[in-house]
Amino acid sequence: MAEQNHPKTAMCPKFEEAVSLLGKKWTGLILHVLLTGSTRFKEIKEMVPHMSDKMLAERLKELEECGIIERKVYPEIPVRIEYQLTDKGNDLEQVMASIRQWGERWM
Amino acid sequence: MAEQNHPKTAMCPKFEEAVSLLGKKWTGLILHVLLTGSTRFKEIKEMVPHMSDKMLAERLKELEECGIIERKVYPEIPVRIEYQLTDKGNDLEQVMASIRQWGERWM
Repeated sequence: MAEQNHPKTAMCPKFEEAVSLLGKKWTGLILHVLLTGSTRFKEIKEMVPHMSDKMLAERLKELEECGIIERKVYPEIPVRIEYQLTDKGNDLEQVMASIRQWGERWM
Repeated sequence: MAEQNHPKTAMCPKFEEAVSLLGKKWTGLILHVLLTGSTRFKEIKEMVPHMSDKMLAERLKELEECGIIERKVYPEIPVRIEYQLTDKGNDLEQVMASIRQWGERWM
């Protein structure tokens, strides 16, 4: 029997996908910052100082591809770029809140 | 000003610590399995087939060091070893549930 559909693998693929996505290094913190209203690359970077620009750019791209954030380009001079949570992204507020509460209780 | 106490770093260290701990690859899935009641190394491994024994052993050790699980050794022949969530670990149920709900809605 192929390993994936082993009867014992009761793991729900959606849960697996969600926890793997959220579990990527820095993603939780970036989402936390976006949920506090920051929209600009520089603002986000300042809130998570130990993360490199390259890593932030990579994570923002992934989050955009997953439909969790959207990237808005304003044709100004200089160009203005903002990142905003989509409905899917905003719906992560509850997940972030439960992590924060657990952290405050136990860490 | 040292980077850590940069006024802009409004990131709560407890949240950062919690999300980094939970964000480690496989940790979310292992916790999910422990919450479903599995206690033996072999049982956990079967539920997360793509993970190596070495990785599972490493993650269980980390979770034990963080006080999220406890390891019970029963002096039988052969020796029996069980892993159980502590109160701190069981309190993660809400976090796991919120991730699962989000995954079911959006993934």
